[in-house]
Amino acid sequence: MRQSARGQVDPFIVMDVMAAAARAEAAGRDIIHMEVGQPGTPAPAGARKALASALEQPLGYTVALGLPELRQGIADLYRRWYGVDLDPARVVVTSGSSGAFILAFSALFDSGDRVAMGYPGYPSYRQILRAMSLEPVGIETRPEDRYQPRPEALPDAEGLILASPGNPSGTVLRPDEMRALTQAATAKGMAVISDEIYHGLSYGDRCHSALEITDEVFVVNSFSKYFSMTGWRVGWMIVPETHLRTVERLAQNLFICPPHASQVAALAALDCEEEAQANLAVYRENRRLMLEGLPKAGFTRIAPPEGAFYIYADVSEFTDNALEFATEILDHAGVAVTPGLDFDPDRGARTLRFSYARATADIAEGLRRLTEFMASR
Amino acid sequence: MRQSARGQVDPFIVMDVMAAAARAEAAGRDIIHMEVGQPGTPAPAGARKALASALEQPLGYTVALGLPELRQGIADLYRRWYGVDLDPARVVVTSGSSGAFILAFSALFDSGDRVAMGYPGYPSYRQILRAMSLEPVGIETRPEDRYQPRPEALPDAEGLILASPGNPSGTVLRPDEMRALTQAATAKGMAVISDEIYHGLSYGDRCHSALEITDEVFVVNSFSKYFSMTGWRVGWMIVPETHLRTVERLAQNLFICPPHASQVAALAALDCEEEAQANLAVYRENRRLMLEGLPKAGFTRIAPPEGAFYIYADVSEFTDNALEFATEILDHAGVAVTPGLDFDPDRGARTLRFSYARATADIAEGLRRLTEFMASR
Repeated sequence: MRQSARGQVDPFIVMDVMAAAARAEAAGRDIIHMEVGQPGTPAPAGARKALASALEQPLGYTVALGLPELRQGIADLYRRWYGVDLDPARVVVTSGSSGAFILAFSALFDSGDRVAMGYPGYPSYRQILRAMSLEPVGIETRPEDRYQPRPEALPDAEGLILASPGNPSGTVLRPDEMRALTQAATAKGMAVISDEIYHGLSYGDRCHSALEITDEVFVVNSFSKYFSMTGWRVGWMIVPETHLRTVERLAQNLFICPPHASQVAALAALDCEEEAQANLAVYRENRRLMLEGLPKAGFTRIAPPEGAFYIYADVSEFTDNALEFATEILDHAGVAVTPGLDFDPDRGARTLRFSYARATADIAEGLRRLTEFMASR
Repeated sequence: MRQSARGQVDPFIVMDVMAAAARAEAAGRDIIHMEVGQPGTPAPAGARKALASALEQPLGYTVALGLPELRQGIADLYRRWYGVDLDPARVVVTSGSSGAFILAFSALFDSGDRVAMGYPGYPSYRQILRAMSLEPVGIETRPEDRYQPRPEALPDAEGLILASPGNPSGTVLRPDEMRALTQAATAKGMAVISDEIYHGLSYGDRCHSALEITDEVFVVNSFSKYFSMTGWRVGWMIVPETHLRTVERLAQNLFICPPHASQVAALAALDCEEEAQANLAVYRENRRLMLEGLPKAGFTRIAPPEGAFYIYADVSEFTDNALEFATEILDHAGVAVTPGLDFDPDRGARTLRFSYARATADIAEGLRRLTEFMASR
């Protein structure tokens, strides 16, 4: 039976690490998980309670753009978080940020179009683009630019994906950097998609939305990270008014609607910022431990992790095969970490990503093991 | 800001009817809904109960192909329903049947490829294909073939979508027809996708799966209809072993995973066939009323509605503008029905789809109003 060329996307290398970690656990070993990109906490209690009470309702299809009260609640968030006055009509509730990217790419780009993004970056950008017959164009970023692209480095392309805080880097674009990038991109005729999925998870200044700078941008966010709702598959996208009808028709046909139960939970989650802030306090402490412990263990070349729950480390002094190195760390230290290859097809062979999204006790134990392992090397 | 050509998919014409019905209701009118393609019943009680008990768990990402026990449960269903022994490794849990189509089309077809389907048919086939830079090729079907394509009518194309029971027709492919179609398609090098989302909802013989005939097929199904879980966005797809790795990588990147909470509910729904059968008994009675009442009202040219919860009527003796006719029915009779244009871009101007998925009392009242309206015309 035929197979498409577009379907031949790259495998996730982290999956090999996760499978090896699962095998080790099945064999009775205790593994500390610094490879996973999701909170260990459940959805906020208020969100779960709201869903429990709604379970007597039919929960059939909602309209394609999502429950009106949820769209209003998200618009209100933009006023609270950024001081931006946002028409709820421009809020599209999506099946996770993944669903938002599929909608944005469909609405903006045709087969063969080029879409640029900083390397290292979230691997699924590249793979979703390929699956849609679009061409990902990597912009090699520099540690001295905090792994964010410079405006003068933008290639010729139809689109640009910005990510702040970045994954795997955790680095944040300042407002002036965001402005310079969006202006340079617009001048080159590029459509800008700003991935803001880690907003709310920052440890210095608050994160700035591209919407504070321009309305001519697709902004993607989600309930997955700050609101700790990864498996619920509910995210959102802010769309320029000019593209609303297009996105609505695409959403009707490609998704029908985001999961209704998850929308009910998400609506209530908007009122659970206290619990989200408590989770953030845990990440903050974890990050403090990591920034203290990783250099002591020998991982000194790290990007300033201003947001999200990741630390990206250059390990070129130890290896030029990060997958092998990650396997060694798993085997000898019992700590699962992510080799950088998923994020940067070239230089990722000499980098690791450490996630600190789990419980603080796990982070402390993981650091102890990493220190011991590196000392014995 | 740029817009893509692929993003310019057709609007749903039924949305105009639904909006008009909503306006009428907001103005205080009582409207009978025969336009909507979803059950009025909630998810099975057992499914909702299982989710309520699971809400204390984190419900983070599952693996991309879905919870292993759910995949096993779906494989078991194939033994129960069809006597097919299915390796659960071939079961892919998806974000509704919509997610299954996106995965199937990505795995099978490249930009510019042609995918054939019978007209009338589910409108989103065409629109998803267009959004993915694929070309939908309609096969005009005949009432005397129960609106299903004939093997000798297959065009040159890379793919074929079969739908049994069909939407809007409700007609069912017999095993010999299914065999002839899949064989003819395979002989022409077409990949076959069999949409079996209405299986379980049949009123004569049981529905036959394409999997009873060949393993060289993508079979799409969902918890939406028979299990009454439309808004939960959880479906599945059976994939040939040769395509599993491709589909898994695509699912990891395009969706991460189907909604976890919905998977928990769906797993429990598999044990709720008694409730599903009770819903089916309601549809059966509704169908009986419709088959009796619609011809009496004047709608005599109807496809034999052997499955699903739709009746497709040729109304060319009354109109060549089905949208206007549907509007007239809504305005004068207070019954919302679907004009055929969404299902058949050409001949749909002279057809209507009636859905009988709602409560029996509504169906009886709807028929009373339709009869009165047609008599007064």
